[in-house]
Amino acid sequence: MSIFLAELIGTALLIILGDGVVANCLLNKSKGQNGGWIVITMGWAMAVFVGVFAVGSYSGAHLNSAVTIAMAVAGNITWDQVPMYIGAQMLGAFLGACGVYAAYKQHFDITDNPDAKLGIFCTAPAIRSTIPNLVTEIIGTFVLIFGVFYISKGDVGLGAVDALPVALLVLAIGLSLGGPTGYAINPARDLGPRIAHAILPIKGKRDSDWGYAWIPVAGPIIGALLATALYLALK
Amino acid sequence: MSIFLAELIGTALLIILGDGVVANCLLNKSKGQNGGWIVITMGWAMAVFVGVFAVGSYSGAHLNSAVTIAMAVAGNITWDQVPMYIGAQMLGAFLGACGVYAAYKQHFDITDNPDAKLGIFCTAPAIRSTIPNLVTEIIGTFVLIFGVFYISKGDVGLGAVDALPVALLVLAIGLSLGGPTGYAINPARDLGPRIAHAILPIKGKRDSDWGYAWIPVAGPIIGALLATALYLALK
Amino acid sequence: MSIFLAELIGTALLIILGDGVVANCLLNKSKGQNGGWIVITMGWAMAVFVGVFAVGSYSGAHLNSAVTIAMAVAGNITWDQVPMYIGAQMLGAFLGACGVYAAYKQHFDITDNPDAKLGIFCTAPAIRSTIPNLVTEIIGTFVLIFGVFYISKGDVGLGAVDALPVALLVLAIGLSLGGPTGYAINPARDLGPRIAHAILPIKGKRDSDWGYAWIPVAGPIIGALLATALYLALK
Amino acid sequence: MSIFLAELIGTALLIILGDGVVANCLLNKSKGQNGGWIVITMGWAMAVFVGVFAVGSYSGAHLNSAVTIAMAVAGNITWDQVPMYIGAQMLGAFLGACGVYAAYKQHFDITDNPDAKLGIFCTAPAIRSTIPNLVTEIIGTFVLIFGVFYISKGDVGLGAVDALPVALLVLAIGLSLGGPTGYAINPARDLGPRIAHAILPIKGKRDSDWGYAWIPVAGPIIGALLATALYLALK
Repeated sequence: MSIFLAELIGTALLIILGDGVVANCLLNKSKGQNGGWIVITMGWAMAVFVGVFAVGSYSGAHLNSAVTIAMAVAGNITWDQVPMYIGAQMLGAFLGACGVYAAYKQHFDITDNPDAKLGIFCTAPAIRSTIPNLVTEIIGTFVLIFGVFYISKGDVGLGAVDALPVALLVLAIGLSLGGPTGYAINPARDLGPRIAHAILPIKGKRDSDWGYAWIPVAGPIIGALLATALYLALK
Repeated sequence: MSIFLAELIGTALLIILGDGVVANCLLNKSKGQNGGWIVITMGWAMAVFVGVFAVGSYSGAHLNSAVTIAMAVAGNITWDQVPMYIGAQMLGAFLGACGVYAAYKQHFDITDNPDAKLGIFCTAPAIRSTIPNLVTEIIGTFVLIFGVFYISKGDVGLGAVDALPVALLVLAIGLSLGGPTGYAINPARDLGPRIAHAILPIKGKRDSDWGYAWIPVAGPIIGALLATALYLALK
Repeated sequence: MSIFLAELIGTALLIILGDGVVANCLLNKSKGQNGGWIVITMGWAMAVFVGVFAVGSYSGAHLNSAVTIAMAVAGNITWDQVPMYIGAQMLGAFLGACGVYAAYKQHFDITDNPDAKLGIFCTAPAIRSTIPNLVTEIIGTFVLIFGVFYISKGDVGLGAVDALPVALLVLAIGLSLGGPTGYAINPARDLGPRIAHAILPIKGKRDSDWGYAWIPVAGPIIGALLATALYLALK
Repeated sequence: MSIFLAELIGTALLIILGDGVVANCLLNKSKGQNGGWIVITMGWAMAVFVGVFAVGSYSGAHLNSAVTIAMAVAGNITWDQVPMYIGAQMLGAFLGACGVYAAYKQHFDITDNPDAKLGIFCTAPAIRSTIPNLVTEIIGTFVLIFGVFYISKGDVGLGAVDALPVALLVLAIGLSLGGPTGYAINPARDLGPRIAHAILPIKGKRDSDWGYAWIPVAGPIIGALLATALYLALK
């Protein structure tokens, strides 16, 4: 499997399972409706587990553009690989989000809340305010990327054997730092599905909240850079 | 242990624990009543863990006719083994369901809801509609079988060492894609216990919803074939 | 560490953590009050993990008289070791229960419900009826002991490396088969703490329900014998 | 990475994730509000996992002054290392708590309950009473330190490979023994963030409850000494 295909498939798995758990918890008549924060965070953690386990041997399973940028800055991959990684992640995230829509189509149709429908695809802050929202995303991604360096140990990324540690790391971040912004901590995870939301013919959907869209891109990138700097300084 | 016995016992363990958690959550006066989606999905995941751990060394622990078909298409087992696998799974699932009835007999007796009683044995869609229900089962099983190929790595199936990864894969699918149809993702898991429901003298039971019964058989088989095709194309 | 001390300490850890989680969920003003079935079952599973991890290298970490009897029948330990194992387990369970009382003393004092106080120490059926309660305990222990044989692989019991699999097995049984009787599945787990309940000066306590006490002893032993018979027949 | 930096960073990770989960559950409008005991205890357990995984290779990942004292008494580290360990832990815990405040700033601002705000930083007993509170902390830390000795096996502390077992040990203690006092079981975890609470300009904060502050220091130290004594006696 090529790196491009691996990142595409891995990120599609991440998003169909990750966005899927939000759909399950938020949409009317879904069997997991109101499952609570433990369901949301376990769902995302297991989504990471599945994606990393499946494609870890092929691309290092970044599945996250902030991880890719961190790996490039640290010299674990080359900069000319970065566009391929990020392109594959965005496309994979888009396709994964389409899969969630296909699986939950009827439940989208009977749910009236347009914010909930958007919230399945991408993150939204609990209290909207640029700097605090950015800070929260920076802190969450800082913890993620710093942890990923100690899990991947200088390799190009994560292997199948790293799937459980990184899933538990994401579980930790979701449980603990996910409260204010819904922990995007990954530009591809937020932007790819947001584009899907904009394109898909979802019944009664609202706009795709493009005013917020740059925060879950910029915040994770800044957080990744800071974590990489600290990691390299400590090495 | 022969392959037949291994699949029979493994699937019986899967179903006594899997259907058991639904009984615990749905039946009156049960200590786990209204335990919620995290209890249901963790129960099924741990059921997979126990079944695969116990018999993985003997049969590759398919415990799922969609896995068996995928393994045959991929050439990991021979086609003449398929009827034995599937027969053992169906019989094991039937016996496991009888075990749940035995363990929860009194709680079945004091619960009035006939839909809940049926829902312990087999899946039912949250919103009934053929194509969408089929699509959801196809997607869920696609993720399952695709993941199973990367866990089993070309072997005849899953060994004891694969029990945790595959349990977490099933946990992910349940949390994320289980909302619309209750994630059968396994013909034996649904059909064997449905037959048990039809035969067992359950007090105040309804019909066994045979009109829906083909969907959790056909959907998983289609999903398995698609996942196998993608896996083989990528190999 | 001698086998006696290992079983005593391991079972004390099992019970202080296992009975502890019930105290946390049931007693007034406790921070985990009404934590739900996922808290109860995860608490018991992690209690098994800690007990087995700590003493697995010394005694095979039975921590359960049904496991000890099964191991003796299967020839993995000698019959003259059985009284030492069971005696240590009962004493350890008694001491663990005293630890729970010490840790939650003030919460026992301000909780009025005498059934809840008893329920922290030992199991009680949701619907009282001898044969069905016995059957449920037999089925649950059958699954436990059958699984333990495939985890321990002919050894004298469980080592530290088996702590996670057996904890997940107990998690599975609790989630799925714990509803009707509260899954004693272990004579020492029920009888040792019941004796502690009878002796400790618990404010406003009820009688220790001795009429039921034989069921969580006899059921697990019968279940263990049946599971051992099947395991030996399949070997 | 030096031992000092490792303990500082590891404890900062522990506290930003551990105190973070409490913030997520207690503060108004946070997405995890009222997540329940399973969220709190899983959050702390995963916080331990991340901290130990990241710095285990450098310092033995004590992240807890009671662990440090136990390791010194057992002769696994030298006494002259103890001030460095404890100083790093206190500073790391302080910084981690500041990180939680930064991530949840807006939610602190809109939450009126001053006890909840303090409860994010440090522990408070459910029923205040010196001896019982002390006893509960002693018992919880006793279990922790006793377990840590069997996980670390005579080493200077915990390595990355021990991250999962020790996380599950802390999960067990939280689920089971956390009810009365909120399981500090670690002087640095309580004191460092309490100092942060006193210093940070938190809107509408109460005093930092210094009258209680010695209990989550003294209790864990006593519990650690008792556990070390038992461990050494058994060795």
